[in-house]
Amino acid sequence: MSDYNLELHRQAANTIRGLTMDAVQKAGEGHPGMPMGTADIAVVLWTQFLRHNPQDPQWPDRDRFILSAGHGSMLIYSLLHLSGYDLPLAELQNFRQWDSKTPGHPEFGHTVGVETTTGPLGQGITNAVGMALAERWLAARFNRPGYEIVNHHTYVISGDGDLMEGVSQEAASLAGHLGLGKLIVLYDDNRITIDGKTDLAFTEDVMARFAAYGWHTQKVDGHDPLAVKAAIEAAKAAEAMPSIIACRTHIGYGSPNKQDTSGVHGSALGDAEIVLTKQALGWPTEPLFYIPDAARDFLQMDGRFQNEWQLLWQKYQGAFPQEAARFQQFLNGDLPTNWDDILPTFEAGKSVATRAASGQTLNALAPHLPYLLGGSADLTGSNNTDIKGEAALTRDDFCGRYIHFGVREHAMGGMLNGMALHGGVRPYGGTFLVFSDYMRGSVRLSALMGVPVIYVFTHDSIGLGTDGPTHQPIEHVMSLRAMPHMTVIRPADAAETAVAWRSALEHKTGPTSLILTRQGVPTLDRSKYAAASGAARGAYVLSDADNPQVLLLATGSEVQIALEAQEKLAAKGVAARVVSMPSWEIFAAQDVAYRESVLPKAITARVSIEAGVTLGWERHLGLAGKAIGLDRYGASAPHKAIYQNLGITAEAMVDAALSLLG
Amino acid sequence: MSDYNLELHRQAANTIRGLTMDAVQKAGEGHPGMPMGTADIAVVLWTQFLRHNPQDPQWPDRDRFILSAGHGSMLIYSLLHLSGYDLPLAELQNFRQWDSKTPGHPEFGHTVGVETTTGPLGQGITNAVGMALAERWLAARFNRPGYEIVNHHTYVISGDGDLMEGVSQEAASLAGHLGLGKLIVLYDDNRITIDGKTDLAFTEDVMARFAAYGWHTQKVDGHDPLAVKAAIEAAKAAEAMPSIIACRTHIGYGSPNKQDTSGVHGSALGDAEIVLTKQALGWPTEPLFYIPDAARDFLQMDGRFQNEWQLLWQKYQGAFPQEAARFQQFLNGDLPTNWDDILPTFEAGKSVATRAASGQTLNALAPHLPYLLGGSADLTGSNNTDIKGEAALTRDDFCGRYIHFGVREHAMGGMLNGMALHGGVRPYGGTFLVFSDYMRGSVRLSALMGVPVIYVFTHDSIGLGTDGPTHQPIEHVMSLRAMPHMTVIRPADAAETAVAWRSALEHKTGPTSLILTRQGVPTLDRSKYAAASGAARGAYVLSDADNPQVLLLATGSEVQIALEAQEKLAAKGVAARVVSMPSWEIFAAQDVAYRESVLPKAITARVSIEAGVTLGWERHLGLAGKAIGLDRYGASAPHKAIYQNLGITAEAMVDAALSLLG
Repeated sequence: MSDYNLELHRQAANTIRGLTMDAVQKAGEGHPGMPMGTADIAVVLWTQFLRHNPQDPQWPDRDRFILSAGHGSMLIYSLLHLSGYDLPLAELQNFRQWDSKTPGHPEFGHTVGVETTTGPLGQGITNAVGMALAERWLAARFNRPGYEIVNHHTYVISGDGDLMEGVSQEAASLAGHLGLGKLIVLYDDNRITIDGKTDLAFTEDVMARFAAYGWHTQKVDGHDPLAVKAAIEAAKAAEAMPSIIACRTHIGYGSPNKQDTSGVHGSALGDAEIVLTKQALGWPTEPLFYIPDAARDFLQMDGRFQNEWQLLWQKYQGAFPQEAARFQQFLNGDLPTNWDDILPTFEAGKSVATRAASGQTLNALAPHLPYLLGGSADLTGSNNTDIKGEAALTRDDFCGRYIHFGVREHAMGGMLNGMALHGGVRPYGGTFLVFSDYMRGSVRLSALMGVPVIYVFTHDSIGLGTDGPTHQPIEHVMSLRAMPHMTVIRPADAAETAVAWRSALEHKTGPTSLILTRQGVPTLDRSKYAAASGAARGAYVLSDADNPQVLLLATGSEVQIALEAQEKLAAKGVAARVVSMPSWEIFAAQDVAYRESVLPKAITARVSIEAGVTLGWERHLGLAGKAIGLDRYGASAPHKAIYQNLGITAEAMVDAALSLLG
Repeated sequence: MSDYNLELHRQAANTIRGLTMDAVQKAGEGHPGMPMGTADIAVVLWTQFLRHNPQDPQWPDRDRFILSAGHGSMLIYSLLHLSGYDLPLAELQNFRQWDSKTPGHPEFGHTVGVETTTGPLGQGITNAVGMALAERWLAARFNRPGYEIVNHHTYVISGDGDLMEGVSQEAASLAGHLGLGKLIVLYDDNRITIDGKTDLAFTEDVMARFAAYGWHTQKVDGHDPLAVKAAIEAAKAAEAMPSIIACRTHIGYGSPNKQDTSGVHGSALGDAEIVLTKQALGWPTEPLFYIPDAARDFLQMDGRFQNEWQLLWQKYQGAFPQEAARFQQFLNGDLPTNWDDILPTFEAGKSVATRAASGQTLNALAPHLPYLLGGSADLTGSNNTDIKGEAALTRDDFCGRYIHFGVREHAMGGMLNGMALHGGVRPYGGTFLVFSDYMRGSVRLSALMGVPVIYVFTHDSIGLGTDGPTHQPIEHVMSLRAMPHMTVIRPADAAETAVAWRSALEHKTGPTSLILTRQGVPTLDRSKYAAASGAARGAYVLSDADNPQVLLLATGSEVQIALEAQEKLAAKGVAARVVSMPSWEIFAAQDVAYRESVLPKAITARVSIEAGVTLGWERHLGLAGKAIGLDRYGASAPHKAIYQNLGITAEAMVDAALSLLG
């Protein structure tokens, strides 16, 4: 340890503090306290441990660094700049400005080297659990003795808020259960939150809690570089357990008047206090954004670690050519080209729940997409998310291909994001649609980051029956549609479900929510109706009539009701067209001509049916149309009784159509 | 302890088991395993501890009983029936059927004696923390030595799933912090989840975790009534700490072939296995729904505890007449009649953030609504939720009138629900609107139960500026509008904010979400524009024109943009009406004539502006209108730059209006 240069350390840490204070002051807003408090920890980690390559931020075996306390974004921007990533100083000087690469919170895909979007607390550490899981899973599959091509750590800096959030507690419990030994969390234990001292609301014994989860725990002085270094070494050595190191730090370290106060958490220090702080730190007060060469050199990273790995990878390719090709396939996420041969077909007329069709489709696809890895939040049999014949992964054997997330929806969402961000796996996860509410914080980040997570949301309406209102989604489908960059697909039958899975897998730039029934729905006779492939365009004419007078719009299990209404209307001499609309987002992306061909503007008599809120349907109905739906909560009864009593019926459609036609 | 009649206990517990098996079998669906496993615990609790009165389920000082594992609903239905609540056996025989009082999961307001709606895991135990907090707060305010008119326990039966959920972990941490000693959780430690054994995903040391939170912990055999009784006594004796008792139970207790399997969690046992189980339990196999008189007598509860309390309350009224009147006021939640005298007024022209106006209004109201009790999830200064001059409550002094929830949004939501359900307080809680996602599971239950929680959601759009996309709500306002029974109010300025608070307080049958800006917005000159009282009708004509050609619809901070557009259009000779629409739900509840007067059908040229998703606006625009909004995520920059760059501008409204008018 004695070879660690404390003077260079001091300069590097103070450089980060100076950049932080100056950038926040220039922006007028930001969070200086956290980077100032954690600079010592970060410098030790980035100079002594982090194996990365600023010249190739995509190197698959790089260590992952997650700033879970994303408000401290100037910490990571400083580190990225100083270590050599393509983030010029001018960007730091343009902190929080329009079009800069330095937004208020770090954003994946926006700034090179940022591994995940953080800011919403608890998400980063949960992503990290997913990344560590993906690493371990790939390692179990691909490493060979002496050829450990997957072998990296996931490091997290988290704050108090991260650890108070339920999502992190769920994830930490699962990380302990799975013994994710390469996950190391540096807890910025600064004892200050926005409202004041943490003891206003947070007096639990955090380390004892993590020990109860099965974590390796340590406490150190976060401003003693050698102690931090020793602790990280000990954490790495504890290979069977994830590690957390409570680093006692001082928020706003160095500020004579603001250190250890909540005032330095989220506000600029002010010019005068910045001068005082720099003086107290023994740091030049000018120029602003001062970076001594020695500090830059200390943090600068070249390609040495990747070069080492590259040699190993070349040897691996020679020794294990098949595995190497397969590893490449995993990283690429190659999709099948012969979808029609692979996707299951379903017999017309049979009643099949779309969740069951989803399970069949997943199982048909699984052998062809070996990197597909998912699970359920303790609803495996209900979500039909398991792959038959494959075991679940366990702490002792990570070769399994299924994840029991436990009753932890939010952690599941955050972990799926982390797995997708890690790469080498294509993640999916299942729960009841109503519990998408529990994980919405993570689901939104899937969409914001544009990561291709597949959510399998089953039990999608009052159709689930007697479990009653607490379990019956009403507003959920529309609420997911409201989320930008989320693709929602609610297939009408088994055949549309297979198409939906293909659409989800082909969509690599954002998440997809598959919305599936608990109850059986008839598999439509495609010799009578249009082919299910139409679902791939989001909406399509399922059953037409000559010169239709009215459009009947429906999704999912209500499509069969629309078809029934069509027949009843025909019997009354009314020509109606039934449009199945499994995905509004995909439909919106079609060209104008196609959309007009499905929903001709000239036909203003329009009736929709969906067992959920009507809000939003006006997009397709206009003010002249009529939405059959539920602007109330459900009820506990067998599902046919609920549909009947709440008026989600063909009769209601017929009445609406007739009244619209006058 | 030796006076506990084990034979009567056995009969009572087996009666519950029999009712459960028979009801689930008759319904064909349900969760028999949990009530069978916890019957012993429940009988001890309900016969030896629970102070309640089936004849007056509203008795304010009753002990609260929360079945957090709500899927075991036949447990509480059995207990309510047997102890004498108005829940006839016929209702149990009609389990899960349309219009029965015995839905799949227990529903507050639907079944007498059900204290809260449970089923979504983790919520019940979190509600219980809120109830225990309310009890303690009222006790601190009203009890006098020898006159402890508020003095009851809150008992919870929870399962594994409850404890895995993040929401319960947040709440448990805060309960430990606050030392809520009258909260006692009986943990049904049956080691089985839906997916199989709990050790598939849940191997943490649960009791050690709770000890780390500052809880009193015990482990007992959950089928040993005397051990359970002793443990509850010890838990009560540990007055400074909340208690959890891990009761080792066997799910589906008594079933020869299904006990201790996940198969008995959520499926009927089948007639044959029911016979075998009853035989194994030494229980008559017939008649079905068998209730021996001795068992009923054992569980039957009369009014003795309430009678005792009533005597105390009469003495209290004599000794402390003022406090007694005040206590009654708290229970009633009496509202002011002189709103106009109380509500603050705001100077026209001044720029005031609506969050600041909300804080001023709250502070003006607080002295007149002494039962108003709330807090923030560690964003007090940002949410403006504090009451000046009032301290926060602490474990040592519960006379404070503010709650530091910590960074625990979901627990805050669940606790607010519990506080509202407890009564005697009117709860509110604040966080950033974007984090309504984190608490959506609880928010939905506020709406489903119809409890009058007030959510103070600030930082409501891109208008929050440089914190960037992770913190900028886009879909949240519309997603809350999509939730049935949620009233959303997004006021345009300070004056509308005061009206919004009044609307929220007057709305006692459901929750309200106040949606407030971070940035300053001009306080409108009401001598020029219509009075802010119009906001109480949900939407109103703020600024009219003679024979308007176009309607400009807006909410919140975008109302000022609509007014600007109106002026620009006037300059071009176009007559536009500006409608401020703070609450769609309140507007929808107005009569047809009023709605038509605000949004005349004849005017089809309509442009809306809201810094959020456009989905849903078609409700007011039709297919002919044009919505100015954001169907993408935000950006990190000063807010004016974001509005400008993302096109949320008066110019965009003008262009849209002109193009609609051709």
